[in-house]
Amino acid sequence: MPAAVLTISSKNYSSWSLRGWLLCKMAGLEVEERIVPIDDAAVRAELLLLSPSFLVPCLEHDGAKIWDTLSIAEYLSEWNPAAGLLPGERVARAHCRSVSGEMHSGFYNLRSALPMTLKARHPGFKVFTGALPDIARITSIWRDCLATYGGPYLFGSSMTMADAMYAPVCTRFRTYDVTLDSASQAYCRAILKWPALVAWTKAAKAEPDDFDELDVEF
Amino acid sequence: MPAAVLTISSKNYSSWSLRGWLLCKMAGLEVEERIVPIDDAAVRAELLLLSPSFLVPCLEHDGAKIWDTLSIAEYLSEWNPAAGLLPGERVARAHCRSVSGEMHSGFYNLRSALPMTLKARHPGFKVFTGALPDIARITSIWRDCLATYGGPYLFGSSMTMADAMYAPVCTRFRTYDVTLDSASQAYCRAILKWPALVAWTKAAKAEPDDFDELDVEF
Repeated sequence: MPAAVLTISSKNYSSWSLRGWLLCKMAGLEVEERIVPIDDAAVRAELLLLSPSFLVPCLEHDGAKIWDTLSIAEYLSEWNPAAGLLPGERVARAHCRSVSGEMHSGFYNLRSALPMTLKARHPGFKVFTGALPDIARITSIWRDCLATYGGPYLFGSSMTMADAMYAPVCTRFRTYDVTLDSASQAYCRAILKWPALVAWTKAAKAEPDDFDELDVEF
Repeated sequence: MPAAVLTISSKNYSSWSLRGWLLCKMAGLEVEERIVPIDDAAVRAELLLLSPSFLVPCLEHDGAKIWDTLSIAEYLSEWNPAAGLLPGERVARAHCRSVSGEMHSGFYNLRSALPMTLKARHPGFKVFTGALPDIARITSIWRDCLATYGGPYLFGSSMTMADAMYAPVCTRFRTYDVTLDSASQAYCRAILKWPALVAWTKAAKAEPDDFDELDVEF
C-alpha cells in the first residue's frame, strides 16, 4: 500500500478528478493514481450528470478516506498548511472558501452545456443561452478577486484551492472558444500555463477515446 | 450595524437558509436575520433550482462576507473551535467534511423530487423513482456514521456540521412520509427534536403562504 492513493476516472472528461489531482499537486502530496474503469456504471452516471460523486476523486491517506473535492482541499490544507491552499488572512480565507464552495455546488448549466473535454476545440461554439448567466457570474467572481488581491491568481501571487476549483472552467472556456473580458482572459492564460494542468492535459490527450458511447453532446 | 447579519429567504422552503442558520446557532453566534423578499428574482430562481446561491445564506461578520453554506460552516468552526462543528479527531474530521460536501453538491434528484416545505405533510407520498438512489445513499451514509461513532448524532454524542447539512433531509423524510430503516428513523427523530430546528419550523409555519406563485410541484 503506497502512502497515498487518489482514485480518479477519465482525465479527458472528469473535471472533479482533475480538481482533486491538482489539489494534491498543490499540497505536495505524492499520490498513486487508481483509475476507475470508464465502464463502471457509477462513474458513467457521474460523468453524465456532471456532478461529483463519492467515487472520484477519492483520497486515501494515512488511515483517512476523503471523497469530496472540497473535503480533500481542507484535508490537504491541514496536512500541509505551508502549501497555502487557503489564504493566511481570515477575511481572504472566508472569501476563498466562498468562491470555492460556489463552484462546488453551482453552475449546473455551465457544466451541462460546456462539459470538460480537454482533447476538443470548438472554434465559434454557440453557447446555450442558459449557461450565459453562469459565465457572467464566474467572470464576475474572477474580476472581483483579481482586483482585490492583485492577481495573477485569484487570491494574489500564489495559487490557492480556488484556482484548482476553477481550473477546469478555464479549459472549458478554451475548448468552447468563449469570449471573455481581458482580466478573465489573462487569468485563464495564467492557469492554462500551470505545469500540473499542462501535464494532466497531455495525459488526457493520450487517453483512448472510448467515451463516445456516453452519448454526451459536446 | 449589528455584530453579525445572516441573510436568508423563506423559512418554509429554503433549506440552504436553514442550514446556515443552524450552523450559526451551533457555533453560538448571535445573528440578526435579514430576509430577502421572496419576489426577488434571484431568490425565486434559487428556490426553483433547489440549489445554493451567493444570495442566501450569506453571513456578514467582523469584516468578512461568507456566502456559501460549507464556507459558513468552516468560518464558524474557526471562530469558535470549542463548539465542535468539526470532530477533533483527524480521520473523523475528514469523514465529516466528506459527507457534508456530498450533501452540498449532490442529491439533485432528492432535492427536486422532495423539496423542503416544513408546513406540509403528505402521508403515503409516492416518491419519484429517480430519487430512490439518493435516499439509499443518504441512509447508507447515516448508518455508516451511526455505527462508526455510536450516535445519536452522525459523529457521536454531540452535533457537528454534518447534522446541520442533513437536517433539512430529515424534515423532507417527515413531510413526504418516506419509509426508513430503524437506525435512520432514530436519527431523524433525534434531529427533529433539536430545539433550534423546532424553533425555525415554528417560524416557517407562521410564514405567509405567498410562495404558491412559484408553481413548484410538491
